[in-house]
Amino acid sequence: MTHIRPATRADVATILEFIRGLAEYEKMLHEVKITEADIAEALFGPSPKVFCDMAEANGMAVGYALWFYNFSTFEGGHGLYLEDIYVAPEARGTGAGLALMRHLARRCRDEGLRRLEWQVLDWNSVAIGFYDRLGADAEPTWILRRLSGEALGKLAA
Amino acid sequence: MTHIRPATRADVATILEFIRGLAEYEKMLHEVKITEADIAEALFGPSPKVFCDMAEANGMAVGYALWFYNFSTFEGGHGLYLEDIYVAPEARGTGAGLALMRHLARRCRDEGLRRLEWQVLDWNSVAIGFYDRLGADAEPTWILRRLSGEALGKLAA
Repeated sequence: MTHIRPATRADVATILEFIRGLAEYEKMLHEVKITEADIAEALFGPSPKVFCDMAEANGMAVGYALWFYNFSTFEGGHGLYLEDIYVAPEARGTGAGLALMRHLARRCRDEGLRRLEWQVLDWNSVAIGFYDRLGADAEPTWILRRLSGEALGKLAA
Repeated sequence: MTHIRPATRADVATILEFIRGLAEYEKMLHEVKITEADIAEALFGPSPKVFCDMAEANGMAVGYALWFYNFSTFEGGHGLYLEDIYVAPEARGTGAGLALMRHLARRCRDEGLRRLEWQVLDWNSVAIGFYDRLGADAEPTWILRRLSGEALGKLAA
């Protein structure tokens, strides 16, 4: 039985391990620069703008969901943007992912958040099937654009 | 010459007009539910989580950018997510859009935000060309998923 609870400072090392597990699954491990200090500062520093819930089974952390508040000017209110969701390999198929998604949906209901949104890699058919079963819409007409590194610095200059 | 300044309460009616202009351009006017009260509460209530900058030319508001902080667990830090950018029809081609993007890029530089991100409709070739000229990456392998309304309520139940 999976239990969901807010992350605490004691989870920082586990969260880093899980972030690396997610990145490995997404074939992006080479992109991971985050450190335990970054996680501690973002989640447990003053006025955090990002939040983390842990999935736990038999007293062991088996997954996490990391999220922040987004906003829709069309809806006229805040939503919840799920940046990461991850379940450790040994806990897959136990309902931990569903428990995390349900927990987030309940937060949306309780806080009046209009949308729960996230992004999925187009080749991740296992995750896509899971999200389809939850009844999630796909919005393929929106293309994510990003400025970072040199291009971002150049525009700022 | 375009000047960028933070939005104030006096801009609320203009922001609503611009949001409706953006929605009309995006063929989504039927989806706009936001009111002046929603805008005032989100931008100027206690502890706002969403922010707005106005583009001004000759003392007149000609556009806006509405944004919030996102977070990348791979980068290990916050970024800036641009929810809306809009320039009124009569001010297009005057550099107001570029001035808004440059202002946001400077905020990223000054606050140490790693990424400036947004989404664009795949048929909006004018905007896509503008973003290409800024050097923005396209990340087409990420599909936006969304739970809202009945499906969101069902998962929460």
